[in-house]
Amino acid sequence: MELSEQIRQVFSYADQHQEEHINRLREAVAIRSVSQQKEFRNETIRVVNHFKTILESLGATCQLRELGNEDFPDGTKAPLPPVLLGQLGSDTNKRTVCVYGHLDVQPALKEDGWNTEPFELIEKDGKLFGRGSTDDKGPVLAWINMIDSFKKCSIPIPVNLKFVFEGMEEAGSIGLHQLIKSLKSTFLKDVDYICISDSYWLGLSRPCITYGLRGNVYFYVEVECAKKDLHSGVYGGAVHEAMTDLVYLLSKLTDEKNGRIAIPGVMDQVRPFTNEERTLLESLDFDECEYREEIGTDKLRFGDKVNILAHRWRFPCLSIHGIEGAFFGPGSKTVIPQKVIGKFSIRLVPDQDPDDIAAKVIKYLNDEFAKLHSPNKFKVIKMKGSRPWLGDTNDTNYNAAKLAIKNVYGTEPDMTREGGSIPVTLTFQEVTGKSVLLLPIGSADDGAHSQNEKINRKNYIDGCKVFAAYLYFISIL
Amino acid sequence: MELSEQIRQVFSYADQHQEEHINRLREAVAIRSVSQQKEFRNETIRVVNHFKTILESLGATCQLRELGNEDFPDGTKAPLPPVLLGQLGSDTNKRTVCVYGHLDVQPALKEDGWNTEPFELIEKDGKLFGRGSTDDKGPVLAWINMIDSFKKCSIPIPVNLKFVFEGMEEAGSIGLHQLIKSLKSTFLKDVDYICISDSYWLGLSRPCITYGLRGNVYFYVEVECAKKDLHSGVYGGAVHEAMTDLVYLLSKLTDEKNGRIAIPGVMDQVRPFTNEERTLLESLDFDECEYREEIGTDKLRFGDKVNILAHRWRFPCLSIHGIEGAFFGPGSKTVIPQKVIGKFSIRLVPDQDPDDIAAKVIKYLNDEFAKLHSPNKFKVIKMKGSRPWLGDTNDTNYNAAKLAIKNVYGTEPDMTREGGSIPVTLTFQEVTGKSVLLLPIGSADDGAHSQNEKINRKNYIDGCKVFAAYLYFISIL
Repeated sequence: MELSEQIRQVFSYADQHQEEHINRLREAVAIRSVSQQKEFRNETIRVVNHFKTILESLGATCQLRELGNEDFPDGTKAPLPPVLLGQLGSDTNKRTVCVYGHLDVQPALKEDGWNTEPFELIEKDGKLFGRGSTDDKGPVLAWINMIDSFKKCSIPIPVNLKFVFEGMEEAGSIGLHQLIKSLKSTFLKDVDYICISDSYWLGLSRPCITYGLRGNVYFYVEVECAKKDLHSGVYGGAVHEAMTDLVYLLSKLTDEKNGRIAIPGVMDQVRPFTNEERTLLESLDFDECEYREEIGTDKLRFGDKVNILAHRWRFPCLSIHGIEGAFFGPGSKTVIPQKVIGKFSIRLVPDQDPDDIAAKVIKYLNDEFAKLHSPNKFKVIKMKGSRPWLGDTNDTNYNAAKLAIKNVYGTEPDMTREGGSIPVTLTFQEVTGKSVLLLPIGSADDGAHSQNEKINRKNYIDGCKVFAAYLYFISIL
Repeated sequence: MELSEQIRQVFSYADQHQEEHINRLREAVAIRSVSQQKEFRNETIRVVNHFKTILESLGATCQLRELGNEDFPDGTKAPLPPVLLGQLGSDTNKRTVCVYGHLDVQPALKEDGWNTEPFELIEKDGKLFGRGSTDDKGPVLAWINMIDSFKKCSIPIPVNLKFVFEGMEEAGSIGLHQLIKSLKSTFLKDVDYICISDSYWLGLSRPCITYGLRGNVYFYVEVECAKKDLHSGVYGGAVHEAMTDLVYLLSKLTDEKNGRIAIPGVMDQVRPFTNEERTLLESLDFDECEYREEIGTDKLRFGDKVNILAHRWRFPCLSIHGIEGAFFGPGSKTVIPQKVIGKFSIRLVPDQDPDDIAAKVIKYLNDEFAKLHSPNKFKVIKMKGSRPWLGDTNDTNYNAAKLAIKNVYGTEPDMTREGGSIPVTLTFQEVTGKSVLLLPIGSADDGAHSQNEKINRKNYIDGCKVFAAYLYFISIL
């Protein structure tokens, strides 16, 4: 199926007004909306208001929904950024698409190894570098650029649009799921399809549509040996050190030889790996050498495409992220840390359940700690948890997206899954009962959550076109 | 043996001028002379000049000895603070005592858990809180207060004094050992005794003299899995994570059940624990309950005084200090760190040798890493190393100190060893061939290297008296 002439006009407009669209991204990146660090909480509130102003300038009706306070472990509180709900069009003859995006970002410091200031959008070789450029300010702005292009061309948008933009995604979307549930019979009642652009292509050149996500469950393992940090010369030998217990416990989480999860029962609910899945994975446009090079390693856990993708998408994995409370700086400090908190998480796949996995992890670590007969204080805490998700790839929502990509890029999209969790996906599906689609516009090498995060100029501009074409096909299929 | 009337006059002066002496400490603490962090390098240079001015105002002849640059792992350089050499008196009829001290301090941030600003001296309940108050600006100033008190009373100091004050002790005394060697036949030629006050009493009330120190050897274990930090959702499962290897390797350093060092051969050169040593340890004024309470734990590695002290002083121990490169902040970051550097050190006792121990550690970790068949990059680096030391407790130097303590405190000192390393002790002894004495003035609960470091007002003022009496007995024994 082909695009209409009107949609082609919208494409031309987008091509001709790239600089304006990039300036929108520059303004958004400059807002340090880091949701995990409470000192930036004002910026996460500011970024929501910034996008409200933009949406209203394009004719949308907006409301801010307050979510109350976040309670921090140290006993302090801070207000959560409100959720921005927007609506553009209410023609009962049109279908209604609800777009979700997030306006907050991961922490970033130039000292972490960025080549440029993370909160300053800098273009180099067709790449737009900056924290949030691809996760997720760029994709949200591609929707906004799309609306702007329709408006400037005086062409009606072929569907009604609704927006749910939040400011806490990188910090667990506190309060959002409750809010979405509360909108079931009001704001979300007439929504037909849901579209989320907060993931990435599989490779560098062929677009994809994503129909599955892993869940996640995050743990803190806390060991305390003293009420203050101690000098290892003065106290070393007398104290049963917290770090000794912690590294031992962390070392028991995975098999040291192959990295497989060593916690009993955790693999029990993982669905068997089918031949159909194997065939699909074999067909995908994925270059394992390129992937290895991008990571910067000579050897991954697996050498072949099928295993690499299967272990990224449809098998669980465990990552140890770090230790809070231990010495972390450069140099050689001779400290015995008083209290250390090991942090790790497990990515979940169907049919694993976060609460069931958490119970197994907590039991296992308590058993292992008991074996040590350590005098130290010990605690495992389950932090955030989210379930895995799989969509139905043969409905109108997915078909419209496939046609949009075909028309913009001249190729069929790869049908992929993602290793990360976007818990809101599952919430939208469960609350509305409607199809949820993940339509990424960023490339595999964008480096979300990493140093030197970027979005390619071409992906950013073409993203706007894909969204326009997607809405067109939604309206005619 | 009793003190002379003149020395008693000096004591009275010190008692009556406490506020002046505390103001000297206030000024010194305010200088952020953190030697491990290169951003404070100018302050480590400033503190040396500050003490030069003070010594000169008291009539000493001073010189600054430059040590060149420090090379940092990132390829940058910074000038080392110079060493301050001072001389007061050159009467060939008097004995000459050389005093060593250091003017640099450990890192400190209020956020680390200090109740007050670390670089502001604040008195509460007779305790003078501030970074460097006891380690080692307070003891150095007690020497200076002693000289000032002699001068103000117009009483001649009974010995010639020499000073070696450095600004890099907490960062491995780079260049100092070479400098001391070079002074053997010049500045240090006529030195009879060496006195260092950079350790602590065993308990809270009875003073001690320290005749042994452990050595130390510090290691970095580096594992690298990628050229940048990775999102654990996007990459988790595909990558053989560096943290998995590192926590495994760190967990193999000690026996998880009792904290004993698990590296083959490391205990081979440890001298047998004799009955005499056991008897000495049993006699010491040490309250294991108080010690446990100060640390803030219900149970230590050992329950009895003899084992606690033996494992602090005369057995080696291994401490894992932390990990550089992993996530360390509060919150729940889902990162796979690209490169992690585990940091640990081993405290050494006679007759362990740092180079021999380092060879065993490096071989062991390389063997353990090889067993993992990991694709990651791996490296163990030996950083600083220092040998253990034992002095002869029956010479004039030690006898003068015993009498000084008896006269100031009315009690025999405990004869103790220390678990920490002061490598310069060994260097002074080897270069001069003379007796080195460790004469602490701070209390066991001072918290050197920890949050809320302090020196008691009483210890600070009495320290000045102990030094005066010590010099008197040196001159008459």
